Amino acid sequence: MRTVDLIEKKVEHGELTSEEIAFLIRGFLDGTVPDYQMAAMQMAIVFNGMTDREATDLTMEMMHSGDVVNLSELKGVKVDKHSTGGVGDTTTLVVAPLIAACGGTVAKMSGRGLGHTGGTLDKLESIPGTQVEIPLDRFKRIVNDLGVAVIGQSGDLDPADKKMYALRDVTATVRSIPLIASSIMSKKLAAGADAIVLDVKVGSGAFMRTLEEAQKLSKLMVEIGRRVGRRVVAVITDMNQPLGLAVGNALEVREAVELLSGRIPEGDPLYEVCMLLGTYMLLLSDLAKDKEQARKMLQEALQSGRGLKKLQQMITAQGGDASYLCMERIDELCSVKEIRPVYPEREGYVTAMNAERIGTAAQMLGAGRATKADRIDPAVGLVMKKRLGDSIRKDEPLCLMYLNDLSRADAAIAEFLSAFTISDEKPAYSPMVYDVIGE
Amino acid sequence: MRTVDLIEKKVEHGELTSEEIAFLIRGFLDGTVPDYQMAAMQMAIVFNGMTDREATDLTMEMMHSGDVVNLSELKGVKVDKHSTGGVGDTTTLVVAPLIAACGGTVAKMSGRGLGHTGGTLDKLESIPGTQVEIPLDRFKRIVNDLGVAVIGQSGDLDPADKKMYALRDVTATVRSIPLIASSIMSKKLAAGADAIVLDVKVGSGAFMRTLEEAQKLSKLMVEIGRRVGRRVVAVITDMNQPLGLAVGNALEVREAVELLSGRIPEGDPLYEVCMLLGTYMLLLSDLAKDKEQARKMLQEALQSGRGLKKLQQMITAQGGDASYLCMERIDELCSVKEIRPVYPEREGYVTAMNAERIGTAAQMLGAGRATKADRIDPAVGLVMKKRLGDSIRKDEPLCLMYLNDLSRADAAIAEFLSAFTISDEKPAYSPMVYDVIGE
Repeated sequence: MRTVDLIEKKVEHGELTSEEIAFLIRGFLDGTVPDYQMAAMQMAIVFNGMTDREATDLTMEMMHSGDVVNLSELKGVKVDKHSTGGVGDTTTLVVAPLIAACGGTVAKMSGRGLGHTGGTLDKLESIPGTQVEIPLDRFKRIVNDLGVAVIGQSGDLDPADKKMYALRDVTATVRSIPLIASSIMSKKLAAGADAIVLDVKVGSGAFMRTLEEAQKLSKLMVEIGRRVGRRVVAVITDMNQPLGLAVGNALEVREAVELLSGRIPEGDPLYEVCMLLGTYMLLLSDLAKDKEQARKMLQEALQSGRGLKKLQQMITAQGGDASYLCMERIDELCSVKEIRPVYPEREGYVTAMNAERIGTAAQMLGAGRATKADRIDPAVGLVMKKRLGDSIRKDEPLCLMYLNDLSRADAAIAEFLSAFTISDEKPAYSPMVYDVIGE
Repeated sequence: MRTVDLIEKKVEHGELTSEEIAFLIRGFLDGTVPDYQMAAMQMAIVFNGMTDREATDLTMEMMHSGDVVNLSELKGVKVDKHSTGGVGDTTTLVVAPLIAACGGTVAKMSGRGLGHTGGTLDKLESIPGTQVEIPLDRFKRIVNDLGVAVIGQSGDLDPADKKMYALRDVTATVRSIPLIASSIMSKKLAAGADAIVLDVKVGSGAFMRTLEEAQKLSKLMVEIGRRVGRRVVAVITDMNQPLGLAVGNALEVREAVELLSGRIPEGDPLYEVCMLLGTYMLLLSDLAKDKEQARKMLQEALQSGRGLKKLQQMITAQGGDASYLCMERIDELCSVKEIRPVYPEREGYVTAMNAERIGTAAQMLGAGRATKADRIDPAVGLVMKKRLGDSIRKDEPLCLMYLNDLSRADAAIAEFLSAFTISDEKPAYSPMVYDVIGE
């Protein structure tokens, strides 16, 4: 088998066999398929795509390129969630404990990744003492005891994805539905989940910019799950503004605690997306018979305080100081030198936000990493005071910025303000949930 | 400027600026643009193409990546010819001396390349003593004295093309009209020609498999020439069978000598393509006022023996023994252990030939290189006895194979026979010349 012939086949709209995909991925990892050939293949896939069968084989080959976590000794359906990445998305910190409080099993491994703000791991680490690098057997013990734990990827999980993604990142081949789907699904499958709820974001702060793209990606991931015998549902949700009001690390933990303390009302976008994800996680776990029952279970866990308690127990089990995780003390984690309100340049209605730029503004304050080496400042970030469609006066702040390094403020404020379109006309309502695939 | 942004621009159907193309090519040569990024860019070009302006900038950037030969001290219009490669194409050995005999100036540099049979350089070297590695000043002296010389590329001509082609060859990015056009044109321009006649082959033995592809490539190369102030004409000719009857090195020299000795009649494909190329070379050199006059001049040079004499003088000037180049002695160069007739598997009409396979059969006998290290046997090859449309009986040979290494015969014969389709129906006539672009 010659790699050049496989590339040629893909250029000519051919379908790669399972053996050919195995040859490519194994060869790429052991160095016999050089990166320039993989780059050419990835670019050919950007243009000519893959069949569902090819994408499934690619996923399985990537999944088996390294360790595969065996969670079979844990009781119940091991359910995972994954978001394709957005701004102000702290759903994991809400949903994972809620599911555990409802009797579910969430053994979650998160990647760290670059981005506007830290990932879930960085948010967890903003709680003093919390460890996310935990040996697998201890991780399983915590899940067994509590029904929930969230750690970093341990061991050599999906090395093919790491190597392929690093190459895609520098060759403009990131935007390919089958390559994105196989990257996400191979990691989730290697992490041992039986069932997965995917939150595919669409909008100005998301990787998928159109609903059509998001639907294609969702359908493919659900289909890959079906073909390998996993239960997968994908919800497509809006990312035309930050999901929650907080954009930062401790600030997002605070918002999660507020939600789990019953301080955030029904109808709030973060609340509703958490309910939606939780609903499908309970359904896939066979813990609820329909959506109504699932929502009721989640709300009961929330209102009773059992959800917050699960989060506290999980943090304690992971070595963290859970005493911060209550409305009385949570502000201590968000203590900064200065909280600066940011005012709009004109009055009117907020008709559009570029959520990605809002994320970048938070990153500029120190809430996220531009390069792997950057250190995150857990306390900084911003809290939105206005949402899409809101009216705004010139003396009303668009957000409060939480600052430690004041020298970064001006650039971050400029970036933040550039994200807004303010007009005289109130914009049309846009939905929070666009579609559910695999229901 | 970041390479990944340039790749992204090409993926998104953007047009690269001159500066961006310069950045890419210079960076690729000095190693700051790694091969995996160039591979991704080339693949993006395979799918999204280039504008004429981009292809011209790419050509000029490649041309100036190394030495550029200055032929300005030579008198007259320096005219070159280039064929996109075919089987049994010995036109250079006929046309170059004929043009010189008509008063033209042909200072030709050939590449060596891999292929079914050797290139022009290998054919020249099959004449004992002939040198093709000649210093530039001696090359110019010969052209000044005789009007013609044919040598190998000297110095560091177009290193960008060498490096880009090597990468394309292993990444299935060879088939891209703008990449092919810039590769050909940058080499021809770096070799110093004022005017170029391109012979773009189309058919089973050619790189271009359809007339439409060949027309696109021809138009682009003519347009690149126009944009950089060179006269360029492209003729599109048939390569659904070997052009001449001989496929080999000394065997093709013999056919050239036969043609220049008046032994090959008008109407013969090799004769007619030589006349066609020669006609446009004379027109571009301002040596003939129209096609009729050009053809007459070429025929007069041929019939008078002045063309053959030019070839002999050129070979003598390049150190070769020209005494072989006459009908009395030329067979000595084609002396082999065995000449074996190859008979067809059935009788009927020759309705199709895969010219590439016929070339491969000759290569298997030792007439061409599969790898750079292979040594060519100048005497071996084959001489076709039948052409497309001919009727054939089972006791009539399709060709005569010229063999030295008899152990290679069986495999070569099998390959040769697999090239033929023989049917009961006489096939429709197919033309020799499909189109002329840039007339």
